[in-house]
Amino acid sequence: MSQIYNRVALIGLGLIASSMFHAIKRAGLAGEVTGYARSEETRDTAREIGLCDRVCDSAVEAVEGADLVVLCVPVGVMGAVAAEIAPALKPGATVSDVGSVKAQVIAAVAPHLPDGVHFVPAHPVAGTEHSGPRSGFAELFDNRWTLIVPPPGSDRSAVERVEALWQGMGALTDEMDAEHHDLVLAVTSHAPHLIAYTMVGVADDLRRVTDTEVIKYSAAGFRDFTRIAASDPTMWRDVFLNNKEATLEILGRFTEELFALQRAIRTGDGDHLHAYFTRTRAIRRGIIEAGQDTDAPNFGRSNRG
Amino acid sequence: MSQIYNRVALIGLGLIASSMFHAIKRAGLAGEVTGYARSEETRDTAREIGLCDRVCDSAVEAVEGADLVVLCVPVGVMGAVAAEIAPALKPGATVSDVGSVKAQVIAAVAPHLPDGVHFVPAHPVAGTEHSGPRSGFAELFDNRWTLIVPPPGSDRSAVERVEALWQGMGALTDEMDAEHHDLVLAVTSHAPHLIAYTMVGVADDLRRVTDTEVIKYSAAGFRDFTRIAASDPTMWRDVFLNNKEATLEILGRFTEELFALQRAIRTGDGDHLHAYFTRTRAIRRGIIEAGQDTDAPNFGRSNRG
Repeated sequence: MSQIYNRVALIGLGLIASSMFHAIKRAGLAGEVTGYARSEETRDTAREIGLCDRVCDSAVEAVEGADLVVLCVPVGVMGAVAAEIAPALKPGATVSDVGSVKAQVIAAVAPHLPDGVHFVPAHPVAGTEHSGPRSGFAELFDNRWTLIVPPPGSDRSAVERVEALWQGMGALTDEMDAEHHDLVLAVTSHAPHLIAYTMVGVADDLRRVTDTEVIKYSAAGFRDFTRIAASDPTMWRDVFLNNKEATLEILGRFTEELFALQRAIRTGDGDHLHAYFTRTRAIRRGIIEAGQDTDAPNFGRSNRG
Repeated sequence: MSQIYNRVALIGLGLIASSMFHAIKRAGLAGEVTGYARSEETRDTAREIGLCDRVCDSAVEAVEGADLVVLCVPVGVMGAVAAEIAPALKPGATVSDVGSVKAQVIAAVAPHLPDGVHFVPAHPVAGTEHSGPRSGFAELFDNRWTLIVPPPGSDRSAVERVEALWQGMGALTDEMDAEHHDLVLAVTSHAPHLIAYTMVGVADDLRRVTDTEVIKYSAAGFRDFTRIAASDPTMWRDVFLNNKEATLEILGRFTEELFALQRAIRTGDGDHLHAYFTRTRAIRRGIIEAGQDTDAPNFGRSNRG
């Protein structure tokens, strides 16, 4: 793979940025990768583990001379970071981001960017429940989708370079408009996360069942919820506050369906339940065929010898 | 490990029974294991793959002379199977089961059993989303909990032999009364399954987001729900119909909490969300420390190189 950008700046050094660094290096996609994190502790860790070619003590320093600046900070602070770096951006540079929400991020970031700077929002649909500079790894994006969400009228060559970078990092790419992105992600990610957080919270609250019991008997389904519910609290708070409409819409539909199934349980309508559960199996099959998960039992957890 | 039973009969040859057979053989826990499944196709498969030392064409034939009979059928048919085999049970034999619900199973099975036959209900808290005679493997129960739920006044030596069998198959064991078992499992398994089924159903229903999109972008959380929602429909229909009260109680609390979080999103109460999400992380940590899941990102799915 050949170099796509001379210099890339990563602002925020968590799971996604650290994985990007390793994936960029693996494929030789950039001449230099600079990095900045607000917390001094994170910057020290980054220097210690060799995360980024150069760790800077300010966002402005990190973006100076960069051809691509990627905002890898929680969705709620994207606008403030954009305002801070705007004066230091190189003419002709591209700004991108990795936020899980797009419409609000575009609204928050775009007004700050000077003329002649391109804005190409992106969202790698990949992650783990871990966070911080040590959590990244080069393979995170391999065979996972990254959605490119260019605002109308975007410069095509700038968009295609960002796509090429993601493909170079191992990702599949698609383009989508911001509103549709936010609805799709409300279904595939935001609502499931809120539901998982809720169920884990209920288990923790219930006095008649101890936390020890919940933990010991979690293999029966609950542990998959806890993985989701262990994700970064700040990131997720910002996701929900910034994709409010779509998330609430999906949760509304979810509650409606849940009530219908609860009613079937209460009235003993076994046929309704069986038909519903049979239908949901097909989606799982589609995900495995699309290569987005493994068919190994329990995701291939180690019990399978 | 030495032999615990001379002859064990497995009635129903799905994931749990086939895993039991392999685990029993691995440790030499029984002299002979007979098996029976209602479907001729399943019996043929079992014979073809060497599942059970002897596959019988009737449940009565399978249980004749058995020291332990384990009912591995959906919860809804436990009573009918018990009635069928009761006349053929050897005096002094033990009947057990592996159902995910205990109070209703005890109520359905116990009245059919003749005097002098022991009844020791059990529930291995382990599973995968796969089902059928080919899905079993010897390691399924390793380091997972099996709950033994003896009715009051049970013969202690019969109880301890069942416990020893499960420990021999690699499981950790605990005793619990039926009512508490059903509440604990409603939290750790039954409610999470219904919620996962519901969310997958909502995604499938939504016209504005295609199934292809849901499948492609499932890595963002949704795929964990689909694994749970791919479990056997008949088994789960029976679980919900037979653990109605506890499941509906937990779902009621879940809905209440979900509404509180939805309200926090609507009103923009970020502090409430952040505090809630921080609390749920601790439970995940407990599950990893208790050895009930892996700390590898994404459950160690293959992306982690």
